[in-house]
Amino acid sequence: MAQRYRLVRQHTEQLAASLSAEDQCVQSMPDASPAKWHRAHTTWFFEQFLLLAHLPGYRPFDDEFVFLFNSYYEAVGARHPRPQRGLLTRPDGARIAAYRAAVDTAMAELLMRHDAPHELLELGLQHEQQHQELLLTDMLHAFAQNPLAPAVLPGWQDGALPGAVGFLAYDGGRVEIGHAGPGFAFDNETPRHAVLLRPFQLADHPVRNAEYLDFIEAGGYRDAALWMADGWAAVQEGDWRAPLYWQHGEGGWRQMGPGGMQPLQPQAPVRHISWYEADAYARWADARLPTEAEWEYAAADAAQQGLVGHVWQWTASAYGPYPGFRPAGGAIGEYNGKFMINQMVLRGGSVATPAGHTRRSYRNFFHPDRRWQFTGLRLARDL
Amino acid sequence: MAQRYRLVRQHTEQLAASLSAEDQCVQSMPDASPAKWHRAHTTWFFEQFLLLAHLPGYRPFDDEFVFLFNSYYEAVGARHPRPQRGLLTRPDGARIAAYRAAVDTAMAELLMRHDAPHELLELGLQHEQQHQELLLTDMLHAFAQNPLAPAVLPGWQDGALPGAVGFLAYDGGRVEIGHAGPGFAFDNETPRHAVLLRPFQLADHPVRNAEYLDFIEAGGYRDAALWMADGWAAVQEGDWRAPLYWQHGEGGWRQMGPGGMQPLQPQAPVRHISWYEADAYARWADARLPTEAEWEYAAADAAQQGLVGHVWQWTASAYGPYPGFRPAGGAIGEYNGKFMINQMVLRGGSVATPAGHTRRSYRNFFHPDRRWQFTGLRLARDL
Amino acid sequence: MAQRYRLVRQHTEQLAASLSAEDQCVQSMPDASPAKWHRAHTTWFFEQFLLLAHLPGYRPFDDEFVFLFNSYYEAVGARHPRPQRGLLTRPDGARIAAYRAAVDTAMAELLMRHDAPHELLELGLQHEQQHQELLLTDMLHAFAQNPLAPAVLPGWQDGALPGAVGFLAYDGGRVEIGHAGPGFAFDNETPRHAVLLRPFQLADHPVRNAEYLDFIEAGGYRDAALWMADGWAAVQEGDWRAPLYWQHGEGGWRQMGPGGMQPLQPQAPVRHISWYEADAYARWADARLPTEAEWEYAAADAAQQGLVGHVWQWTASAYGPYPGFRPAGGAIGEYNGKFMINQMVLRGGSVATPAGHTRRSYRNFFHPDRRWQFTGLRLARDL
Amino acid sequence: MAQRYRLVRQHTEQLAASLSAEDQCVQSMPDASPAKWHRAHTTWFFEQFLLLAHLPGYRPFDDEFVFLFNSYYEAVGARHPRPQRGLLTRPDGARIAAYRAAVDTAMAELLMRHDAPHELLELGLQHEQQHQELLLTDMLHAFAQNPLAPAVLPGWQDGALPGAVGFLAYDGGRVEIGHAGPGFAFDNETPRHAVLLRPFQLADHPVRNAEYLDFIEAGGYRDAALWMADGWAAVQEGDWRAPLYWQHGEGGWRQMGPGGMQPLQPQAPVRHISWYEADAYARWADARLPTEAEWEYAAADAAQQGLVGHVWQWTASAYGPYPGFRPAGGAIGEYNGKFMINQMVLRGGSVATPAGHTRRSYRNFFHPDRRWQFTGLRLARDL
Repeated sequence: MAQRYRLVRQHTEQLAASLSAEDQCVQSMPDASPAKWHRAHTTWFFEQFLLLAHLPGYRPFDDEFVFLFNSYYEAVGARHPRPQRGLLTRPDGARIAAYRAAVDTAMAELLMRHDAPHELLELGLQHEQQHQELLLTDMLHAFAQNPLAPAVLPGWQDGALPGAVGFLAYDGGRVEIGHAGPGFAFDNETPRHAVLLRPFQLADHPVRNAEYLDFIEAGGYRDAALWMADGWAAVQEGDWRAPLYWQHGEGGWRQMGPGGMQPLQPQAPVRHISWYEADAYARWADARLPTEAEWEYAAADAAQQGLVGHVWQWTASAYGPYPGFRPAGGAIGEYNGKFMINQMVLRGGSVATPAGHTRRSYRNFFHPDRRWQFTGLRLARDL
Repeated sequence: MAQRYRLVRQHTEQLAASLSAEDQCVQSMPDASPAKWHRAHTTWFFEQFLLLAHLPGYRPFDDEFVFLFNSYYEAVGARHPRPQRGLLTRPDGARIAAYRAAVDTAMAELLMRHDAPHELLELGLQHEQQHQELLLTDMLHAFAQNPLAPAVLPGWQDGALPGAVGFLAYDGGRVEIGHAGPGFAFDNETPRHAVLLRPFQLADHPVRNAEYLDFIEAGGYRDAALWMADGWAAVQEGDWRAPLYWQHGEGGWRQMGPGGMQPLQPQAPVRHISWYEADAYARWADARLPTEAEWEYAAADAAQQGLVGHVWQWTASAYGPYPGFRPAGGAIGEYNGKFMINQMVLRGGSVATPAGHTRRSYRNFFHPDRRWQFTGLRLARDL
Repeated sequence: MAQRYRLVRQHTEQLAASLSAEDQCVQSMPDASPAKWHRAHTTWFFEQFLLLAHLPGYRPFDDEFVFLFNSYYEAVGARHPRPQRGLLTRPDGARIAAYRAAVDTAMAELLMRHDAPHELLELGLQHEQQHQELLLTDMLHAFAQNPLAPAVLPGWQDGALPGAVGFLAYDGGRVEIGHAGPGFAFDNETPRHAVLLRPFQLADHPVRNAEYLDFIEAGGYRDAALWMADGWAAVQEGDWRAPLYWQHGEGGWRQMGPGGMQPLQPQAPVRHISWYEADAYARWADARLPTEAEWEYAAADAAQQGLVGHVWQWTASAYGPYPGFRPAGGAIGEYNGKFMINQMVLRGGSVATPAGHTRRSYRNFFHPDRRWQFTGLRLARDL
Repeated sequence: MAQRYRLVRQHTEQLAASLSAEDQCVQSMPDASPAKWHRAHTTWFFEQFLLLAHLPGYRPFDDEFVFLFNSYYEAVGARHPRPQRGLLTRPDGARIAAYRAAVDTAMAELLMRHDAPHELLELGLQHEQQHQELLLTDMLHAFAQNPLAPAVLPGWQDGALPGAVGFLAYDGGRVEIGHAGPGFAFDNETPRHAVLLRPFQLADHPVRNAEYLDFIEAGGYRDAALWMADGWAAVQEGDWRAPLYWQHGEGGWRQMGPGGMQPLQPQAPVRHISWYEADAYARWADARLPTEAEWEYAAADAAQQGLVGHVWQWTASAYGPYPGFRPAGGAIGEYNGKFMINQMVLRGGSVATPAGHTRRSYRNFFHPDRRWQFTGLRLARDL
């Protein structure tokens, strides 16, 4: 466990290594957080829920940090307002590095104890992995506002999807979804429970940029009949004509990505689309979004190995509690449960998701108008 | 059918009868519409979808009205902006009465034909009944902004709920919900389909004002742990401390209702609460909201006759398409389908719902922060 | 005085005579007030400042009205929020008419007393005349939002300006402006005081629509160099391309006015322009706006009789206190003094100004971005 | 001149020396700009208006910078949106330092030429000095948002005003104000011209914190009668109860200043107040704000040497053109002229104003609700 702790923590620092002090401080919208804040908040999590609770004699590294780096845990107390995270030029990067080092040292001590809280440790590591992806997407958003279009990950290239293109059929019936067993899962993946599925088919690949371009060129963004009412309103108000980060110029379409501004790769999965766009595209393609139960059930199919790892895939399912769901006790119970309204479930994982972090039963969730994550879709149809 | 048409249409006029020309013109918020607009729009529906499509030689009563009284049918064309409906002091009430009379005359002619479109007629009548309830709730909202607190329905009194208070238990299992059969239903109630329910219990009455007061007095509006994150934000931003229309003064709590400002009736169902409040109350009461499937299943129980008719009851279910749902073709397909995102299902019907309008499979839906409808809740628990 | 009281009061009712109950209730923006409110508030003024203060035994017509129809007098007490005046469907028009009649009766009694407060009476009448103009401009704004474009004053036509077009020269020097003497003036016109003027010339007519069209066609709304920075921002944000109420269609330019939507009259004065537009036009015409002192001084010239009565003319002068200005004591002191920031002075009077209401020393004032009044400009140049 | 250029440029770098890269990148509100941006924009000014126009063969240091560091010169072309200046984490601080060095080198070359544009050079230096003050006030605003309350100028202490407290009397009459003569002045200080002044008295010191505290404790922020209508609205909306940066705690009042959070110094001039607060304080003190002409006239009095250098002093004068004012030609003409609306004149200079920058005829200007500058007041009275 101590080695795993070190590896996860190091990965965060590696992601931030190419970013300047200024890069790490900026917050380009209220939904995003500065890279420096991600580095500090993940550390705060270990300090707050492991060290202060389980390491005798541990004192906070800095009393101010309890306030500054609490994200949304009401039970822990007051916290710095989220939209103002980018104003914290101090503490500076060196101070955050010192914070990380001090907590790592104390964690090493804790992990040597026979009563080390391994479940909380695993939660802390999973939590840090989630913030690793957010660090990338938030930084990408900030760089996309800069006319110089810097690269979050210099040299990064979009990969083409493998060639296979088709639908796989499933009988459905009474199936079980959700997590059960020994491995780690978030509380929102439990309890495992039965659902009824009708026969359906699911595409064996996410929708590609080239396919999405057909939708654009066919007037998809101008045809109200394809859209949910709230989606159509978002199209009008935001003047949406393409996914976020797409730009059309003399040389055709380009896309701002982790590698900077690059020509659109037709065979790569479309990403940075809202649920509204995913839903409208599916309707235009005479298909629909899969439910999260269909997705999870199909993901057990050996022929669907590509389901995970390219883009998060919007589903038709609103994010809510599974039957019998009980959030964990205490402040940790705020981790997932209190967001179970107004958001839609995404499944799969993306190129920005740390290796080994996601799984079949994993439930990601965002509001249906958000586009700054690596979000795409996979098509489903009734049989 | 001709007689039913007359009765439904007359009921709308009766609801408006005690309102002055000024009352009928006001729009107190973008979600609400003027009473005059409701009278005209329901007429527009018959003109647009029945007379123009099915009565040979019919000419629109007024070409401007096609634009002015379209609500949200993109397929019909452009329309007057919703937030500006209250600015239409012209056409005046007499002109709207003439519009209604002219359409009624033409409808009488259409209904005498052997090829009268009975399904569309029924849809038009159901549509008008929905607007009858909205006319009342919108007018109540407008009057609640007036320091004089006029009565929408002078003499109206809140009724006490019958005495029985308890939970009824249900085994669940594989059950069917949704509409099938000969009677009318909206497209969103179909297709009938099977769902799996775990054992549960459901209260045999909606939560009463006296019970909700306990929640308030126990500090429910000040305890973040009881609320969804978005709900807690709504409480802070709106400075919510009680349901909409409640006022606390020297003589205790009063409530603005259809009969004007009256002392709070402790045994009446609580109403004018958001989904957030319903959800927080349920958590405080160590219970939860029922899913719409649980509600519909339990509603078949003879002991649950009181489920319908007091207040609309928020459920735990996001409003979405039933498996295999297909909206109707043409503009009518916009009636329900395009709203299947960001809203929560309510079941039951309220004191403002026209007699005979609601049913077990009926799905009402509003955004979770809305409070101007007659919305309350019923508690459920796992068994 | 009693006869003058009757005539002014009757004129208000005549202006409202062609308006329906609904017309009189609508409020199309926070700056505007319903016609019914104008009728009630002017009555409130007599009740509040004359009857309650000077008629022994007078009791308020309705205690609620003290709150409902106070405009902005902090010293009088709390009041109904301005943006919600349009929600007051009750009290209805008949009740307001009764209020006016009751106050008129009591005023007749007061005016027969030897100690009748004649100065306050005159202030009340001048106040009512100001609201007569506002009633027209506010109603015009409301009707301009209605696709049916009703006429506030059916049959009203724009008049052409007389033919003379030129500049008249003035020597300036040490001159006096402001009111002194026996006639009525508002406190903001006092004290009369000396100012220094440099030689200047002033046009003998307001800018005409045809002249303003030249500015539009020369790209005036697209050339940042012509505009103040705040004005240019207003042009961009409001997407201004012409004066308020101008519409361009197949048949050329039309203008919404008191007579409804009519073809633009080239020889009529341009109106419904902001200070920003007046200032930009003047710069484009190699001229400038006159100061209020230049305007008032030139207005004594027999050749400048046309200065008054077509449109209010924006000046280069910010609205502030004259040297030695002292507001009247008590609540009446709030009439003008507390608005002496952020507004620009207009001089002249318009076609909507009641006969005999304006004068050379009269100071009207509005914020520089406002356009719903009858506002135009007259050019000045240095000599 | 070359030496003066070096000194002014060095002073900017000295001000930024204690700031981290992160500090220099942050923008805490749209009115403020990052320190890094100030360093780059002042350099851009020399490059744009001197080097590109007057140094043969000069090529821009970086073509992107022409766009990125233009502030508001429409004539120069498009520019990066002001509210997004804080998102420019790149170019980084080292790149800006290189930009400054390269321009300094080219400027040295230009200044050796016999045709060096000395007037433009002086304008560029005055411009940089203005940004030196803005760099401090903007950075102070950013640090004031940080719970750690860092010091912009560590060790900085508020100074007490000298003891003299009284009013000095002036006869007024026909006096001249404005700039004339050989020294530098901005175009808005010209032409020198005559004005008429009535007899008045002017305090020989700015209002102190202790005096302003009396106003607060007497309920000044709760008494509508003391305020302009727009000011009273600002008090309500902003929940103003004291100057910006004042905090009341257990140990009494503290104030965030260049030296960080420190106890309020009673004998220091009150600062960080809006025009509304200055005006309300003056009314409460049975006085008024001086006009800018009174201020400038009195500033010639040897007994008024303290007029300059503590705080900028709000005047009663709206910022507008002097009679006969002509802005400079070309883009430089946008420097002052296009802001001559909606702002109020301040006179004097503050502790943050670079030595030698201000003078008697200097006209500073801000909108009346702004509080982040070093703004206070001096009292005047009629005689």
